[in-house]
Amino acid sequence: MSLSPFDHPFLSGLFGDAELAALFSAEADLEAMLRFERALAAAQGDCGVLPAELADAIASGLEGFLPDMEGLRAGTARDGVVIPEFVRQLRAALGGAAAEKVHFGATSQDVIDTSLMLRLKAASALLAKRLAAVTEALEALSHRDGGRALMGHTRMQAAIAITVADRIDSWRAPLLRSAERLAAQSFAVQLGGAAGTLEKLGQKGAAVRARLAERLGLADRPQWHSQRDDLAELAGLLSLVTGSLGKFGQDIALLAELGGEIRLSGGGGSSAMPHKQNPVAAELLVTLARFNATQLSAMHQALVHEQERSGAAWGLEWLVLPQMVVATGVALQTAQRLTGQIERLGRDGQDNRL
Amino acid sequence: MSLSPFDHPFLSGLFGDAELAALFSAEADLEAMLRFERALAAAQGDCGVLPAELADAIASGLEGFLPDMEGLRAGTARDGVVIPEFVRQLRAALGGAAAEKVHFGATSQDVIDTSLMLRLKAASALLAKRLAAVTEALEALSHRDGGRALMGHTRMQAAIAITVADRIDSWRAPLLRSAERLAAQSFAVQLGGAAGTLEKLGQKGAAVRARLAERLGLADRPQWHSQRDDLAELAGLLSLVTGSLGKFGQDIALLAELGGEIRLSGGGGSSAMPHKQNPVAAELLVTLARFNATQLSAMHQALVHEQERSGAAWGLEWLVLPQMVVATGVALQTAQRLTGQIERLGRDGQDNRL
Amino acid sequence: MSLSPFDHPFLSGLFGDAELAALFSAEADLEAMLRFERALAAAQGDCGVLPAELADAIASGLEGFLPDMEGLRAGTARDGVVIPEFVRQLRAALGGAAAEKVHFGATSQDVIDTSLMLRLKAASALLAKRLAAVTEALEALSHRDGGRALMGHTRMQAAIAITVADRIDSWRAPLLRSAERLAAQSFAVQLGGAAGTLEKLGQKGAAVRARLAERLGLADRPQWHSQRDDLAELAGLLSLVTGSLGKFGQDIALLAELGGEIRLSGGGGSSAMPHKQNPVAAELLVTLARFNATQLSAMHQALVHEQERSGAAWGLEWLVLPQMVVATGVALQTAQRLTGQIERLGRDGQDNRL
Amino acid sequence: MSLSPFDHPFLSGLFGDAELAALFSAEADLEAMLRFERALAAAQGDCGVLPAELADAIASGLEGFLPDMEGLRAGTARDGVVIPEFVRQLRAALGGAAAEKVHFGATSQDVIDTSLMLRLKAASALLAKRLAAVTEALEALSHRDGGRALMGHTRMQAAIAITVADRIDSWRAPLLRSAERLAAQSFAVQLGGAAGTLEKLGQKGAAVRARLAERLGLADRPQWHSQRDDLAELAGLLSLVTGSLGKFGQDIALLAELGGEIRLSGGGGSSAMPHKQNPVAAELLVTLARFNATQLSAMHQALVHEQERSGAAWGLEWLVLPQMVVATGVALQTAQRLTGQIERLGRDGQDNRL
Repeated sequence: MSLSPFDHPFLSGLFGDAELAALFSAEADLEAMLRFERALAAAQGDCGVLPAELADAIASGLEGFLPDMEGLRAGTARDGVVIPEFVRQLRAALGGAAAEKVHFGATSQDVIDTSLMLRLKAASALLAKRLAAVTEALEALSHRDGGRALMGHTRMQAAIAITVADRIDSWRAPLLRSAERLAAQSFAVQLGGAAGTLEKLGQKGAAVRARLAERLGLADRPQWHSQRDDLAELAGLLSLVTGSLGKFGQDIALLAELGGEIRLSGGGGSSAMPHKQNPVAAELLVTLARFNATQLSAMHQALVHEQERSGAAWGLEWLVLPQMVVATGVALQTAQRLTGQIERLGRDGQDNRL
Repeated sequence: MSLSPFDHPFLSGLFGDAELAALFSAEADLEAMLRFERALAAAQGDCGVLPAELADAIASGLEGFLPDMEGLRAGTARDGVVIPEFVRQLRAALGGAAAEKVHFGATSQDVIDTSLMLRLKAASALLAKRLAAVTEALEALSHRDGGRALMGHTRMQAAIAITVADRIDSWRAPLLRSAERLAAQSFAVQLGGAAGTLEKLGQKGAAVRARLAERLGLADRPQWHSQRDDLAELAGLLSLVTGSLGKFGQDIALLAELGGEIRLSGGGGSSAMPHKQNPVAAELLVTLARFNATQLSAMHQALVHEQERSGAAWGLEWLVLPQMVVATGVALQTAQRLTGQIERLGRDGQDNRL
Repeated sequence: MSLSPFDHPFLSGLFGDAELAALFSAEADLEAMLRFERALAAAQGDCGVLPAELADAIASGLEGFLPDMEGLRAGTARDGVVIPEFVRQLRAALGGAAAEKVHFGATSQDVIDTSLMLRLKAASALLAKRLAAVTEALEALSHRDGGRALMGHTRMQAAIAITVADRIDSWRAPLLRSAERLAAQSFAVQLGGAAGTLEKLGQKGAAVRARLAERLGLADRPQWHSQRDDLAELAGLLSLVTGSLGKFGQDIALLAELGGEIRLSGGGGSSAMPHKQNPVAAELLVTLARFNATQLSAMHQALVHEQERSGAAWGLEWLVLPQMVVATGVALQTAQRLTGQIERLGRDGQDNRL
Repeated sequence: MSLSPFDHPFLSGLFGDAELAALFSAEADLEAMLRFERALAAAQGDCGVLPAELADAIASGLEGFLPDMEGLRAGTARDGVVIPEFVRQLRAALGGAAAEKVHFGATSQDVIDTSLMLRLKAASALLAKRLAAVTEALEALSHRDGGRALMGHTRMQAAIAITVADRIDSWRAPLLRSAERLAAQSFAVQLGGAAGTLEKLGQKGAAVRARLAERLGLADRPQWHSQRDDLAELAGLLSLVTGSLGKFGQDIALLAELGGEIRLSGGGGSSAMPHKQNPVAAELLVTLARFNATQLSAMHQALVHEQERSGAAWGLEWLVLPQMVVATGVALQTAQRLTGQIERLGRDGQDNRL
């Protein structure tokens, strides 16, 4: 049972992205949360906040910990957030002094946000790889067909001839810029404690946070509990990618409808008209562009994050950001596939002018 | 594995709505699609488009049909839509003349949109019931505490005293109006064939459609393949409900933060501060209001549905509308729960003025 | 100087709607506000809240009152809302007992919201007239060209032939439904006083409000200071209209690009390519559809209107709703013009099938 | 007469920003367009596309040119874009060979987009200055009151005490990051000709464009007629700024409502309750945040910019981007004013802990 086409039993044939969706599964979330708690104990051991043996006991005691999912669900229902119950389960698994000191100085948001950043970082690496693949495929297409003539269209009217390379540039250049944007993103650890002041760690707060970041491969930064600008910026970047791919899709769909300048394989079949070859992948790119363009608004509404932590604004991110990431992943895979389906682009003939 | 908090293994403790989500599962969709195909054959039998025995053979031959989900997924990947493969599976199950005539005169969109309308109609009945329950609970609250004084606030400042009943009216009145709006919605069958003209049914098209609508308990209407205004209007109605509930949630969260005029049970616990009682349900109402207010934009973007059928605009609805319905259902359940958690509203004392 | 293309010195050539924009000018707002204050005094006279002669003194003393705009601007800067200064100016103009009793029992929101409703009612009447004109023009077009064949397109691919009448139906039917929706809208007076309880009017509050509504030609309803569902619903209706017209525009632009099935006059010229006939009106319809689809989200965000009055949510409506109304008006005028530019739709030939 | 509160006769008292609005007036647009045409001729003279004396004749002949606004309005109505008529007026003013060669090789979009970039660059400089002023004011506030205690609130509940400096950091840090983002923006010239290929400039296209960019103080880049990612990114940045300021405003409004930890001067007055001090500036920041968060969606929808130029997507930017810039400017001015109104933040007492 799934409400979202992105992980739906049959719609995922079109909208699915198993690789990225896996990063946003409950299992991956819990695994990253566990990683946070173990690394936190280790970092506290490194900095002398916890005795080394106690830190070790926590880190090793939690290895392979498997949470009780039903309990987590009930805990989330009770507390509005999974961490109190998650920590309760960790404590029950650890026992003794380790049970007392696990999660020491941290708060729910530290765990949940850091888990998100760990997975966003992994997702970004994947997206970067796919972006590179798409721009390379477009470059290859330009290499093959770039010299051919293509009728340029402005305002939905034939204008003058351009080359296929010109058109491909308009698809590829924004993707190259977005690849640079993506490479510049940093993914910061979250550690602030109850109200952001790390009050339980005394003078060692910053050192523990830096060590935690290092152990997790994240950037170090003072807590950003109520500062969500980096997340909103990342969401914007995702929507820049899908928007640029939406333009590609729209162009291909128009080429397919106009006919004569594209030969496309692998179109979708129809239950009523078996002769048709629907440019399904091209249309999907438009869908995903408009989807992300809509969702982005919610991520920016969530910037109004009152006081030290807003449950309302935070939850809005949960409803929106994972699906934006997956939409972007699907769009990149779809663009890759669509590029491969272009058997010929542009007019026949030696000359690159009509 | 689930991307959406609405059907997530543990976040569903907060965001879940099993009853409504079930209506938007793949299984429920397929069941409704099957219902369409059987009713279509029966309607065609009723109108003499198919011989009665052939119509019966289709309707009875499909009873209890169980589709091959993996095949449907592959078909969706191939065709961009599930119906060609779904119909292929139906044909394989039926064999003979029935196989030839199942889905006769229909197109993918007829099946998918009608399935959606069947489930939206069921969802609306559920939402109507919950709306009634919430407005009754608010009325009961007004009955109990309505005479107490409450400080009225305008522009985030204490203004003059009002009564609890006055405040509750501002929550209840828009919900009563939305209940009327919901009662006025109609849910229409979709039957147009390849390009909307029912060309295979000759003169009998309108009669078959009317009969199909009757058999399915839907309203009869000429095909609306590219006319999505009723869906966008319904989405708007959903967002009116969550928006009004968001105001309720925001007000309760402010009352809880200001203190002194509300006693609230059942707040969420904190992993760092066990003493806190977070107004989780109230915050969730704000989250869901802002979520639907965002999604609604996509449903209106999807009104630009080019030509006889737009794959791009149609797919956008799939990504958005089911989650809007569930968000509304969750908001109503949450409002009901929150109302029950209000142990006292307003100031103590006989007098209803400060 | 104007930021908005809707009332911009030269962009209004395309985006302008003098008739509707006039309703949302400062002058029209002030005139409606004055109408409110005079009718309020008269209604209070009718109900015995004010002595008849005092009510008359206010109503007649304000006839032809011309506010000092610069003062209003400074007052808005000071108070965040224009009414305190507006009332101060009214008092200065009246003097004596009339000065004391003008605006009696009312609050800023009463004046501003009622002024809005008076103008929305006038705007709706205009929109209804234009909607009727567009649907009639489409009907005439169908009468003239409806029998011709047109290639039906699904998913951006030629499907099977339909008739021009079929396509026109897909444009006209949602507009007819929206005309019914518009006819069902009601426009309610706002009168609640400081915190919505009309506390200064004692037992006569409801009677004064009913009388005020009657004098202003608005519906009577208990104050809806923080209940913005009717405004959000109206905004949704506006976006349904522009969305349906956006589909019309998109279809015309595609017909123009595909060529062969439409002859369109009056296209826009190009500075670089004098031979081109750009389907400017058709594109504009798409622009306006996507604009309103976006703005609608803000109107629904504004439903989260905390406590008795939210300056934040209220101001958001001011930034969005007037431009949505004008966008709708422009779209209707543009659709009307575009319909007139269609010199021929569909293929030549006697037969209505290809 | 003005539809938008940003340049409204009296609402501009609150929403106005004369300095920024001036950049988006018709006059400023025309001035920048003229600058483009003159610099284009000069650049073509520099590169030998035009004889030097002809280039000079154009550049000097257009000095002080005053367009006929009414003609431009009629031209926009006719052509959907102002440039054909603008160039016609330029030609009439120049006469002779200069008339023939002005605007040589360029298209409407080159002029309009470059004019936009010139003004966005100026606007960005202004915004950067204001951003610096706001972050400095916040720093000064932290210097003055930072050591005081403030009750930290999470999820709308008192949590533990923090310091005023902690809270101010959560306002200031995202603004500092956005100042860096803004400093990294580049503003590129637009020059592509009819369909983006600069076909009339032969081999000299890139050189002319580089020279034009240099003369205008813009970045050089191949034409980006249909690549709108930089504009969408800039819009995102604007919304990051207003979103962060919206959090500041929300926090101040909550402090004002909770009382006891803030003393605020200059609140807005009320027509019904003269005793109130409404936190108008704080609320306005929330309004502007939610406004830009909504508008951003349209800028991302406009990324789906079909073929070589989309009139539909382009026009959507016109309706949205100027108001986003001004909203950001107003928010920064308002934040500056609000910071100045904070007479005291946090609790009295020596100790920085409660």
